Amino acid sequence: MSNGSILTIIADDLIRLALREDISHEDISTQAVMPDPVAVHADLICKQDGVVCGLPVFERVFRLLDEKVIFTSRFKDGDRVRNGDKVGILAGDGRIILSGERTALNFLQRMSGIATQTRSMADELAGFSTRLLDTRKTIPNMRIFDKYAVRVGGGSNHRYNLSDGVLLKDNHIGAAGSVSDAVRMAREYAPFVRKIEVEVETLDMVAEAIEAGADIIMLDNMSDDTIAQAIRMIAGRAMTEVSGNITQGRLRKLAELKVDFISVGALTHSSPILDFSVKNLEPIR
Amino acid sequence: MSNGSILTIIADDLIRLALREDISHEDISTQAVMPDPVAVHADLICKQDGVVCGLPVFERVFRLLDEKVIFTSRFKDGDRVRNGDKVGILAGDGRIILSGERTALNFLQRMSGIATQTRSMADELAGFSTRLLDTRKTIPNMRIFDKYAVRVGGGSNHRYNLSDGVLLKDNHIGAAGSVSDAVRMAREYAPFVRKIEVEVETLDMVAEAIEAGADIIMLDNMSDDTIAQAIRMIAGRAMTEVSGNITQGRLRKLAELKVDFISVGALTHSSPILDFSVKNLEPIR
Amino acid sequence: MSNGSILTIIADDLIRLALREDISHEDISTQAVMPDPVAVHADLICKQDGVVCGLPVFERVFRLLDEKVIFTSRFKDGDRVRNGDKVGILAGDGRIILSGERTALNFLQRMSGIATQTRSMADELAGFSTRLLDTRKTIPNMRIFDKYAVRVGGGSNHRYNLSDGVLLKDNHIGAAGSVSDAVRMAREYAPFVRKIEVEVETLDMVAEAIEAGADIIMLDNMSDDTIAQAIRMIAGRAMTEVSGNITQGRLRKLAELKVDFISVGALTHSSPILDFSVKNLEPIR
Amino acid sequence: MSNGSILTIIADDLIRLALREDISHEDISTQAVMPDPVAVHADLICKQDGVVCGLPVFERVFRLLDEKVIFTSRFKDGDRVRNGDKVGILAGDGRIILSGERTALNFLQRMSGIATQTRSMADELAGFSTRLLDTRKTIPNMRIFDKYAVRVGGGSNHRYNLSDGVLLKDNHIGAAGSVSDAVRMAREYAPFVRKIEVEVETLDMVAEAIEAGADIIMLDNMSDDTIAQAIRMIAGRAMTEVSGNITQGRLRKLAELKVDFISVGALTHSSPILDFSVKNLEPIR
Amino acid sequence: MSNGSILTIIADDLIRLALREDISHEDISTQAVMPDPVAVHADLICKQDGVVCGLPVFERVFRLLDEKVIFTSRFKDGDRVRNGDKVGILAGDGRIILSGERTALNFLQRMSGIATQTRSMADELAGFSTRLLDTRKTIPNMRIFDKYAVRVGGGSNHRYNLSDGVLLKDNHIGAAGSVSDAVRMAREYAPFVRKIEVEVETLDMVAEAIEAGADIIMLDNMSDDTIAQAIRMIAGRAMTEVSGNITQGRLRKLAELKVDFISVGALTHSSPILDFSVKNLEPIR
Amino acid sequence: MSNGSILTIIADDLIRLALREDISHEDISTQAVMPDPVAVHADLICKQDGVVCGLPVFERVFRLLDEKVIFTSRFKDGDRVRNGDKVGILAGDGRIILSGERTALNFLQRMSGIATQTRSMADELAGFSTRLLDTRKTIPNMRIFDKYAVRVGGGSNHRYNLSDGVLLKDNHIGAAGSVSDAVRMAREYAPFVRKIEVEVETLDMVAEAIEAGADIIMLDNMSDDTIAQAIRMIAGRAMTEVSGNITQGRLRKLAELKVDFISVGALTHSSPILDFSVKNLEPIR
Repeated sequence: MSNGSILTIIADDLIRLALREDISHEDISTQAVMPDPVAVHADLICKQDGVVCGLPVFERVFRLLDEKVIFTSRFKDGDRVRNGDKVGILAGDGRIILSGERTALNFLQRMSGIATQTRSMADELAGFSTRLLDTRKTIPNMRIFDKYAVRVGGGSNHRYNLSDGVLLKDNHIGAAGSVSDAVRMAREYAPFVRKIEVEVETLDMVAEAIEAGADIIMLDNMSDDTIAQAIRMIAGRAMTEVSGNITQGRLRKLAELKVDFISVGALTHSSPILDFSVKNLEPIR
Repeated sequence: MSNGSILTIIADDLIRLALREDISHEDISTQAVMPDPVAVHADLICKQDGVVCGLPVFERVFRLLDEKVIFTSRFKDGDRVRNGDKVGILAGDGRIILSGERTALNFLQRMSGIATQTRSMADELAGFSTRLLDTRKTIPNMRIFDKYAVRVGGGSNHRYNLSDGVLLKDNHIGAAGSVSDAVRMAREYAPFVRKIEVEVETLDMVAEAIEAGADIIMLDNMSDDTIAQAIRMIAGRAMTEVSGNITQGRLRKLAELKVDFISVGALTHSSPILDFSVKNLEPIR
Repeated sequence: MSNGSILTIIADDLIRLALREDISHEDISTQAVMPDPVAVHADLICKQDGVVCGLPVFERVFRLLDEKVIFTSRFKDGDRVRNGDKVGILAGDGRIILSGERTALNFLQRMSGIATQTRSMADELAGFSTRLLDTRKTIPNMRIFDKYAVRVGGGSNHRYNLSDGVLLKDNHIGAAGSVSDAVRMAREYAPFVRKIEVEVETLDMVAEAIEAGADIIMLDNMSDDTIAQAIRMIAGRAMTEVSGNITQGRLRKLAELKVDFISVGALTHSSPILDFSVKNLEPIR
Repeated sequence: MSNGSILTIIADDLIRLALREDISHEDISTQAVMPDPVAVHADLICKQDGVVCGLPVFERVFRLLDEKVIFTSRFKDGDRVRNGDKVGILAGDGRIILSGERTALNFLQRMSGIATQTRSMADELAGFSTRLLDTRKTIPNMRIFDKYAVRVGGGSNHRYNLSDGVLLKDNHIGAAGSVSDAVRMAREYAPFVRKIEVEVETLDMVAEAIEAGADIIMLDNMSDDTIAQAIRMIAGRAMTEVSGNITQGRLRKLAELKVDFISVGALTHSSPILDFSVKNLEPIR
Repeated sequence: MSNGSILTIIADDLIRLALREDISHEDISTQAVMPDPVAVHADLICKQDGVVCGLPVFERVFRLLDEKVIFTSRFKDGDRVRNGDKVGILAGDGRIILSGERTALNFLQRMSGIATQTRSMADELAGFSTRLLDTRKTIPNMRIFDKYAVRVGGGSNHRYNLSDGVLLKDNHIGAAGSVSDAVRMAREYAPFVRKIEVEVETLDMVAEAIEAGADIIMLDNMSDDTIAQAIRMIAGRAMTEVSGNITQGRLRKLAELKVDFISVGALTHSSPILDFSVKNLEPIR
Repeated sequence: MSNGSILTIIADDLIRLALREDISHEDISTQAVMPDPVAVHADLICKQDGVVCGLPVFERVFRLLDEKVIFTSRFKDGDRVRNGDKVGILAGDGRIILSGERTALNFLQRMSGIATQTRSMADELAGFSTRLLDTRKTIPNMRIFDKYAVRVGGGSNHRYNLSDGVLLKDNHIGAAGSVSDAVRMAREYAPFVRKIEVEVETLDMVAEAIEAGADIIMLDNMSDDTIAQAIRMIAGRAMTEVSGNITQGRLRKLAELKVDFISVGALTHSSPILDFSVKNLEPIR
């Protein structure tokens, strides 16, 4: 998100769409009481402890309404913030700040919520080589923001979508006939820059996947014991990903088993927001 | 959402955008193992108890990929579902079902999560005249789905966006000079079909708002005692809305105070999903 | 329209669409005679007496082609202008001014035409509390401009569209079964920030609407006498709107009957334009 | 408009945009009283004498909401209609018919208004070889509909936009240096399939334009006498177009002078609508 | 392309679409090694002799990613360039330059390829009045760029598309019944600013086309002898275009026959690119 | 392309854009001679020997104009076709077939041209394990079609765009400081499903890349001898890709050196089209 090109080429359209969602023709309340421009400043206040994420998006919301709005902050994405922190200062036409506030906060709160939750789980893995992954269980049309927030929170990204990664699940394997057929067909069809990942549910499937030369083996919904056995069977011949029923408490145990990656859908499908508000709007004198 | 026109005119574009988010050029895994169409059926299974919501959207995701996909269900939005329920059956080209599955579930799980959470809070108000409201704290570009889910879960919708309702907050009042100036300016400016709502934080402001003839008074972040006093002061001359720090446990107490509406941002900004999956994909023979 | 956010978020796309309608690939005539940029100035001249409206849109058309074009005017929207008035001065690349001229004038002339017609009718109501309203009978994709022009001309806006106001017409009442059923169903379904308006054609229906607690009663296609009776029956318990067969000559009579609002579709569906032209284009030396 | 490809490729997007303008998230009134689909029929009634135009667009509005709506009519675009005529019958889900009604009528009424006004002026030219033309003074984003309505009303279309015709006006001639320079530059630059038209205001310019070999000479704002002289000077060496201050009463006189074309901006910028309404909505039993 | 309005109104959307095609969510390689902005400069180097075309588009690609990128060049479109020439210098954030490079080069290389090929063929016609034309055989969604490149290379443009020119081919003539019917129907229907062109394959059809008063006669797939006969028959009563099987070697022969225009589809459907690369990227110190 | 979902979600928008490019408001020639629908059939004829590609796109062009057009063919993408072959039959409204013909052929001819060129080069590699790759040197906004055509012609796809593959070029390596730093940073940043490819120009860089653990090493612009040495050094520890100055004649030699992949930009940036035409349009009787 730090790279301006992403904001311009990808995120801008989504931000504009969100602004139109909230302003289908005008902001009546604001227009009623502020018929003319008024230069103001206002504070962005954090109302919960956590990890801030989405500051460039927060700023962009206002600037897509009016390029003259200025946002300054001594924080950057990934920084820890505390309840009460003044995270930044907005300056510009008061009408723009009131009209953009909700949309800007909706982005910031969700992204910070995800980063906070991710940080909390990633910290469990500190000192281990195991890394925390997201999934494609994002909110529709929020993936670019959701996956960025995971990275900011200390997680890593799994594939972005169906086009940029190969993951052969039960139904793919069924269609191909067997694990080895599925891997072979994927290797034949997919661009050679793709690693081939196979989702397995039993140790027999693990054996097949190793045999088939899968680059990554996803151990889906297995018990810790079965996972331990699978890791031993794989013995470094493929990377390993554990998925399904991952709770915060189980992370360290899995790391000790030396799984390479743990993927957690809840990071993006069920993280609560981190609360912020825009306060102390006052005319600039 | 039951009205086809909404799906066609508003939701279709957002669903298509979500599909392109997940399929930026192709579904490699599926294409690799299913080069040709295969007629299949598959089950939509519920994996948690809750309220289902978004079935027409779930279906629409597949049909925007291929009109020939059929989804049948004995449930309708708002029905309670239980872990293990077979909620519906998909039939069509297996490649379409695999390619659309994640996007379809992402909508369904979020909408059902909101409906479930709303249902749970709305049930606290059973037998009272007090109604549960959503807010504009929705996920960007999900409002049409989020607000529908609130209704399906037994809640009521507050204004949709900045264009279709007047809500004078602290900053509007500050800009106008006083509560009564703000109400007067809003009445002057806003289309006459709008009710005028004022957000107040103290009993003095309550008095001012009554005096100014506000249609709705929002009691923001007040204690139960202050709310009780405010309700007595207002005495039916305006509708009342309570907002801020609403927990499930506090709902019944507020209802007993006879507030008209209670708004809860968490319904749409922090509800966890309700888990579903597509299983048992098999060729149709 | 004075609020930049509206231009940016809503109007810009429509202006760009209009520019593409007029320049599907290039402006051949201009490109042929002006292969290179030429700094020019030109005058915006008014050619009929009336009320000017749309100056920010007029300017925006050119600036969406080239941010360096400057438009200055001593007039603002709502000002009266006279045949021959030099309303403003454009300065910039002559090719941009020639390429944008027709589109810019098409907006300005229509908006000024509506404002002029509205001003003329609103002036009939001077001294009365009755207000003049527009309708949804606007030109497709021009509503944001048309409704703004009505306000600029001294009229008030009725609901913007089907999403932000409740108006129960004969067919809705028929579907509901009765006026009171329709009002009850709307109150149940619609966000609580909506007022409920009912369209009635007879005094019996007026009685029903009062009984049902409608917030606004629209007296449709009634004679002045019947309207007088209806106003007496309603006696302030609901706001009143008169609609249908409204001529300029009838406005004062209706105002004397103390109707609250008079809606006139012709303001936006049949106002002739107010004529302007861009003249005296000359190189800046 | 009779060619389906135009509706699909060009008009559909504009119709959908207009529908979204009127339904930004839902049709509250209809949804409140008709929660479920109801099969109905309703009549399209004409309320003024004139020429009907836009029936395929009227139908398309509903069908873009729901493909199952059916519209049947014994009229076709260009037919004369009379106050009270039942112009057609709609059948389908009552909610779709109510939700689409206003947008559909807004198109039909404007297009029929233009066709009616054009027909009236074109009839003045009956028996003469002179043809009536439109201009680019259309309502923004309505040109495809406006210009079609002119043809349906018996007029002819001038160039569609800046990209598909060359018209050298005073400012182009000024930039080029002279009429002959302008014509030469245009002939050099423009695709060879373009005719070159020059706008002239004096007989001297007429002479220059003939000399330069202009294909079409537009006589702008000239008196009938000057026009007569110009026609004699041109003597068939170029086509002639008369423009400016054209009233219905002057058309026959101009035709007698044997001008080839008369262009009238008012056809598209100031025609009042032709009134229609949707009535008698009743359940299909 | 020199006219900014075209870039802004037409080309920008296509350039942005192309950027999104190449950056569906981020530029991983660049983001990995350059997490922060780095001011750099880099050279645009030509790697083949030819005619450069598309420099404003090349620059625009980067500026749509980041307005702060600067491109300077001592060349302009249409200039000859040689293998090894430093055609220009880019300066800006290195991440933007790396992310935009391929898309920018893809435009520049294709446009320069077309200009080079066109220049080569146009040079054969030097000293003759015969002009070289393009066709509608362009690459989908590249026409605005392809046709501009033909002009830059010294060619002329035929009609832009189906909407701005009339060309009656065999199937149109068949549908109309005869050449003269087709010409008559086109003259009746088409805006009067259009010239009428007819495609003919035999001398009999040439005679018919002359008789029918066609403005342009396209001699399709004829031998040089037949063309010579046709030119004599036409004797200046219509412009002539030759089309089909045009090789570079045949151009001069056709010019000697005094055909007015020769159209060559290969200019836009089969020109190889002209090779360029971005080299010597170095930090600005 | 065989998967309908791709056409619907990705390609349809590009096809529609191409149709609007060619029909900015109407097809004048066709509309003039065919005012009403006429059922016709017509043949798609091949005019050069080669490999056909793009038949589903060819068909889709017409069906996006009118769903009732039918295209039948005994060929499928990838089949060899010969000059004179009747490749398929179109049936439908003659106006739709004429209006869509050019756009449909522009897609088909380009895609078949690429497939033909790719087939020719891929055939050189028959019997070897070396595979032929495309690049990102595609025509802007044609990548989805261009890369599909490469696959159909027997080539393999390299990464689709900057988002789905990591390729560290000279400038990335420069920014990182060294090959090993670049590989390490990419491995740290990129999703773990990506392979890391490094472009090298010398044997020293080859050694570094092996050391750094690159998954793929691209040997850029090396002589055959140097390539042979590099292959020996790498000894299977990474996949190898050869790029730069690849001619058809050199392919077999490179294959004998046992390089894994050879990438050829010319497949998509400079392939000439394969010629087709629509002929024998006749009414269906």
